[in-house]
Amino acid sequence: MSETEPRLAFEDNEYLPAVAQDADSGEVLMLAYVTPEALERTRETGRAHYYSRSRDELWEKGATSGHTQHVEEIRVDCDGDALLYLIDQEGGACHTGYHSCFYRTIDGDVVSEKVFDPDDVYE
Amino acid sequence: MSETEPRLAFEDNEYLPAVAQDADSGEVLMLAYVTPEALERTRETGRAHYYSRSRDELWEKGATSGHTQHVEEIRVDCDGDALLYLIDQEGGACHTGYHSCFYRTIDGDVVSEKVFDPDDVYE
Repeated sequence: MSETEPRLAFEDNEYLPAVAQDADSGEVLMLAYVTPEALERTRETGRAHYYSRSRDELWEKGATSGHTQHVEEIRVDCDGDALLYLIDQEGGACHTGYHSCFYRTIDGDVVSEKVFDPDDVYE
Repeated sequence: MSETEPRLAFEDNEYLPAVAQDADSGEVLMLAYVTPEALERTRETGRAHYYSRSRDELWEKGATSGHTQHVEEIRVDCDGDALLYLIDQEGGACHTGYHSCFYRTIDGDVVSEKVFDPDDVYE
């Protein structure tokens, strides 16, 4: 069933949170932010782009590490103020080497798999 | 493996985004925000609490609708600035009646299941 394109709440928010979820396993991999431009670039290229609030710039996930995210589908929440990227992750999502950035419980137990050594990837 | 409790970035952020994921199916259900108090209440009660930025108040998910979220595990991301609630959802997460708030693709296709009629739940 196809409906009208959901409205995105960019007029009230400079950027919106985007959750990246592994399209196959369902594991939630990371949360980052998007501007309209980052989202547009994601849709154009099929690779996840985000906006860094601290560096104040658009970035492509994996541009440095090679750990690109191929976007299979983009979903929008009811209020249009959050996005969900269903993705196919090259390597690992986390700069620490884990498959998911959510690799720890709040008590500090490690629950995600280490998939690369960050020393081999970032210099 | 147990490590030290992850540091949460509340000193740099008034509130942090929390993603609620169905612990069984892996479906991402909603994204909301938490303050230290909302998180503390969640840990104490085992039921998801959030902070409404628009209403400027702590709320318990399902307090009105009965659509409570039982929290099985809380995860923290690498930077300590996003949380993941693995939950067991009573009814549906979305006030529109869908199981997930992310019930639409960015093109407007409906991809989640309608599990209740909002007219029966909210007056």
